[in-house]
Amino acid sequence: MLALIYKSAWDVALEERPVPEITRDNQVLVRIHATGVCGTDLGIVSGRYHASSSIILGHESAGVVVKTGSAVDTLMPGDRVVIDPTYYCGQCEMCRTGRQNHCLHKAVTETGVSADGTFTDYYITEDRFLYKLADHVSYEEATLTEPLSCILTGINQIKLLPNFRTIVLGAGPIGMLYSYALASKGVTGSIVDISKDRLNMASSITPERWQTHESFESAIESMAPGSHQVDLIVDTTGAVGTQVLSNLAHGGYLMLVGLRDGINSFNPKEIVDRSLKIIGSIDSLGTFSTAHYMIEKNIIPAKKIITHTYPLDQYIEAFSALGCDLNEKTLNPSSNAIKVILQSS
Amino acid sequence: MLALIYKSAWDVALEERPVPEITRDNQVLVRIHATGVCGTDLGIVSGRYHASSSIILGHESAGVVVKTGSAVDTLMPGDRVVIDPTYYCGQCEMCRTGRQNHCLHKAVTETGVSADGTFTDYYITEDRFLYKLADHVSYEEATLTEPLSCILTGINQIKLLPNFRTIVLGAGPIGMLYSYALASKGVTGSIVDISKDRLNMASSITPERWQTHESFESAIESMAPGSHQVDLIVDTTGAVGTQVLSNLAHGGYLMLVGLRDGINSFNPKEIVDRSLKIIGSIDSLGTFSTAHYMIEKNIIPAKKIITHTYPLDQYIEAFSALGCDLNEKTLNPSSNAIKVILQSS
Amino acid sequence: MLALIYKSAWDVALEERPVPEITRDNQVLVRIHATGVCGTDLGIVSGRYHASSSIILGHESAGVVVKTGSAVDTLMPGDRVVIDPTYYCGQCEMCRTGRQNHCLHKAVTETGVSADGTFTDYYITEDRFLYKLADHVSYEEATLTEPLSCILTGINQIKLLPNFRTIVLGAGPIGMLYSYALASKGVTGSIVDISKDRLNMASSITPERWQTHESFESAIESMAPGSHQVDLIVDTTGAVGTQVLSNLAHGGYLMLVGLRDGINSFNPKEIVDRSLKIIGSIDSLGTFSTAHYMIEKNIIPAKKIITHTYPLDQYIEAFSALGCDLNEKTLNPSSNAIKVILQSS
Amino acid sequence: MLALIYKSAWDVALEERPVPEITRDNQVLVRIHATGVCGTDLGIVSGRYHASSSIILGHESAGVVVKTGSAVDTLMPGDRVVIDPTYYCGQCEMCRTGRQNHCLHKAVTETGVSADGTFTDYYITEDRFLYKLADHVSYEEATLTEPLSCILTGINQIKLLPNFRTIVLGAGPIGMLYSYALASKGVTGSIVDISKDRLNMASSITPERWQTHESFESAIESMAPGSHQVDLIVDTTGAVGTQVLSNLAHGGYLMLVGLRDGINSFNPKEIVDRSLKIIGSIDSLGTFSTAHYMIEKNIIPAKKIITHTYPLDQYIEAFSALGCDLNEKTLNPSSNAIKVILQSS
Repeated sequence: MLALIYKSAWDVALEERPVPEITRDNQVLVRIHATGVCGTDLGIVSGRYHASSSIILGHESAGVVVKTGSAVDTLMPGDRVVIDPTYYCGQCEMCRTGRQNHCLHKAVTETGVSADGTFTDYYITEDRFLYKLADHVSYEEATLTEPLSCILTGINQIKLLPNFRTIVLGAGPIGMLYSYALASKGVTGSIVDISKDRLNMASSITPERWQTHESFESAIESMAPGSHQVDLIVDTTGAVGTQVLSNLAHGGYLMLVGLRDGINSFNPKEIVDRSLKIIGSIDSLGTFSTAHYMIEKNIIPAKKIITHTYPLDQYIEAFSALGCDLNEKTLNPSSNAIKVILQSS
Repeated sequence: MLALIYKSAWDVALEERPVPEITRDNQVLVRIHATGVCGTDLGIVSGRYHASSSIILGHESAGVVVKTGSAVDTLMPGDRVVIDPTYYCGQCEMCRTGRQNHCLHKAVTETGVSADGTFTDYYITEDRFLYKLADHVSYEEATLTEPLSCILTGINQIKLLPNFRTIVLGAGPIGMLYSYALASKGVTGSIVDISKDRLNMASSITPERWQTHESFESAIESMAPGSHQVDLIVDTTGAVGTQVLSNLAHGGYLMLVGLRDGINSFNPKEIVDRSLKIIGSIDSLGTFSTAHYMIEKNIIPAKKIITHTYPLDQYIEAFSALGCDLNEKTLNPSSNAIKVILQSS
Repeated sequence: MLALIYKSAWDVALEERPVPEITRDNQVLVRIHATGVCGTDLGIVSGRYHASSSIILGHESAGVVVKTGSAVDTLMPGDRVVIDPTYYCGQCEMCRTGRQNHCLHKAVTETGVSADGTFTDYYITEDRFLYKLADHVSYEEATLTEPLSCILTGINQIKLLPNFRTIVLGAGPIGMLYSYALASKGVTGSIVDISKDRLNMASSITPERWQTHESFESAIESMAPGSHQVDLIVDTTGAVGTQVLSNLAHGGYLMLVGLRDGINSFNPKEIVDRSLKIIGSIDSLGTFSTAHYMIEKNIIPAKKIITHTYPLDQYIEAFSALGCDLNEKTLNPSSNAIKVILQSS
Repeated sequence: MLALIYKSAWDVALEERPVPEITRDNQVLVRIHATGVCGTDLGIVSGRYHASSSIILGHESAGVVVKTGSAVDTLMPGDRVVIDPTYYCGQCEMCRTGRQNHCLHKAVTETGVSADGTFTDYYITEDRFLYKLADHVSYEEATLTEPLSCILTGINQIKLLPNFRTIVLGAGPIGMLYSYALASKGVTGSIVDISKDRLNMASSITPERWQTHESFESAIESMAPGSHQVDLIVDTTGAVGTQVLSNLAHGGYLMLVGLRDGINSFNPKEIVDRSLKIIGSIDSLGTFSTAHYMIEKNIIPAKKIITHTYPLDQYIEAFSALGCDLNEKTLNPSSNAIKVILQSS
């Protein structure tokens, strides 16, 4: 099968790989149909985020069961499924203190980062990581389950009130899903993006009562005209961080979810004196089932958030649509796409 | 009455002030008996923390009711009480979104910071801020209620498991109370202090199963010999902060409670990639009643934590015991005292 | 002023009462404009729920400030306000352990039950119980704030997941508000009412994705065709209760919010063996501000839920619209109204 | 191997069974050393609680790994382990909505109830259900991990405050562990038992600040002399239930954990009007690791709670010590034992 292989920064290529084989009796072989291109993929490709060399990229995926291990009794060939790519052993110190998203084996088990992923035709996982799809949910829509789950995990870190004034930085898929996930909990806010093209696209698919803004300043002025302070800022870009701390109301939350090197600084006295909270969150933890439900019930408008779809062999165009030019080796934060999906052959 | 007045950095003095008078029908006049010296007092006196000029300092206090407004029906003269000094209006945006510790009026109502405090003989407050003392609780012990309440508020920000490996930086009163409050929730850990004298004193009053260490390195080696990572670090000193981020396990918490200017920095990618949380917490929020209960039931060994008691007119000696030399205008983090109490005349 | 007075079961009448006067400096005199008729009012009038004799009924209300006590600085005459009628002292054992809705003084302070209410022209309360209305919110819409707040308090007792299959029994105002409050947290479900008229009315105003059913059996068949078990049943009628326990999934919740005498029984082994929870909830607790926000933002379609409005002197017609015939002394659970409002003169 | 087999009510016997064999690659064969006798075992034997015919009883157990499946890489022969007997598939609707203790496969997978248990020499489970024991923890002490875990799961259903006045009904192992688990969260209370012998034994091992009482009346008078109302009542006997509802303060919790048929009744109006909560809880859910930690750290005095130990072939004496006379076919709630352990040969 052809697979999109990561070799080193800016060096990725479609290469032939053998179809993986079931080696444990709870494993399942899935024929991949669709995999979303995630910001993490761009980070890996551009050298910003570490991945193991020669692994197959891709982790937001759905497909169909083709073969099952001898102990699998809940799934059978032909079952359409979405994949939870966050493997956890369930037995290490992290897993047993409620942090399965940081399983101590992650360094060799993280799908599409430290273990083979799904930008290819076949993928092996265990039965417990598969969720059946309702007939009306397409493989493409289903790929949004994983990023949505990560977002629900992030939101679970916050003692949220519907009346929290909220700003989400970045109108990419994570920003859009954050706004929908927050809206599904009664919260209203603004989405900010510096790319006019992307913002235009986002404007037509924001949740009810949500606004879009071209700048943080404009958003803060609109959300909190007097105080210029809001209760929750979600930075999906990785580029803003503590720069906006002064725009947090006392007791407010800065949620960091963008994987990007940098230096953020703050005065600890301000953090203490104003009861501020800085929360990092990665991967999903106990929320995949709820994300699966929300996609199935169309609480998240998955179809609209997916703006581009390409066959796997056009991965260069797909990455390019997200501002990642594999030929020029440049990563431009601005783009006119929201979610881009790669379809396996 | 004589009152300890803050004028400006390093300029405090006992001055004559009129006994305050009840002006609202829900107010109560309290004859102050004892007030704890708080790190915030040292911060104000030394110019590190802003306070309004000419206010009376002091906010961790207990006394006896001497007069009540016409609408007060739950208290009468002679009632021994501990005072919740965290005034809140209950009507502003902060109060009505669960952040009474950040009431929008705080800038003119914070006892001993922006409003007259209790290093004196009399204090006016509203009935709702007073809690009756059981006969067996001394005024001195009762003064620990307020700092304990702040700590319970801090701990409420954390999804705590008993199995969280924990290090508390600083064996002052806040450090000791943090260790006891955490122990009361089943948590075991280590207390670190660079002052040998204070550490010796602390060693004899740590909670069951808790350790003391002279350095963070020694504590981390003892708590987590392999990984050198723990789940919760509470920095009560204000001097360490994000320096210890690499010693937090994935999903761990850095709790900041020391009011001290500085610059803390971090790489946002690490915060995200390891699901770290940085939590600032100040003042108390809905926990005063529980703190009151814990002092009353002797769950916190208040008597042992109070190592020094002085009459108000020996405030120079009292501050000196905590490393704050009012004559030399120096603040030394090291000290041989844990909690110091000033008794009104 | 004319006031609707409760004397004893089935004995209510409009009588002249003096305009109340401010006696404490934090009090506010409010000119009442609108008050919702609550199920509790029907319960009192019909003798099902105890109230103090000769009090003025009514507690879901909004009006305009006409006079303020000397210590009131957040409100002024002319301010349009909604009233939180759940008085609490803040100083008793209940208030200080997070149960202000069960303040020990409730037996003489409960608006419209044990203290004078708002089915009249003027009402005295304290400043802290008043919330300013945005210009676009009518007094009538604002009256839904209190019942909505009670419902948010109820929901806070549940560890809710969006994927909880839910049935709400009763399409009255409480049932409709429960469905909207649950929907605002991502939950989908069914509303059941035995009154076809009311169900028809409800059908046109259910939240997105919610259904209506004429019978519990029909709802359960639709929600859970295989198992006939759902995760949450809210009984707003007071007439069903534990009869539906067998239709709760393991770990499910039976929320009871209807005030009606009866005998419910269960086998304790079933409760234990299936981890079932039976939750009673009354009045509001820390949620008024969020309810106020949700009404203001139109997250709850208050206008549609209010199906009937009468001037106060047509209270007989108003009660009648809800199935409560004051002449015949009969209370019929069926009705063609959802929310009925009485407007003061 | 000899195994204690349940055939039907009052018909149990030691019978020869083959040593089970590993059939899945994540399975582990454990040589059982010690298994606690649980109230559920008494319930099964006496016909009060349903179990599958011909299964091996016993589920609170510890032993040593003797063989591992090919995919097991965290355990090896010789590892001393405690067993989490609550199997869950992780893939059904219950497991995926946070209710693994009610896995839909429970009817054929519940250790010692619907699947073979551990009152024998060997037991097969999966690696994820085994927790390594520290050297200083005996197999007997380790058997308390499972009941403690169930109790931690129960307590997680409650919004607990340290100041909750608490009464635990029954001084058996569950009652004693409840008192310790509550004490580890700062709560103080009383334990009630009608058996003087057992109460005497319990008196010497109650947590600090806890009391024992011979009757509920005596306990309530001591805990709440004025109101006769407490905040939390835990009924471990299954025989009291809603009889004590009137002794719950408003907003209080009745926790039911005793598996016993009966009829409990209540007036739904009281549940609503007083915000009462009735909570059933069975088995453990996400708390095994914390229980394991608490046993290891000796936060629970496991050695003292275990009052009797017998070899497996003296199971008749062991059951008898708990009031269950297998010859006379009588179950007497009174007993002079707290925890009884059966040691495999």
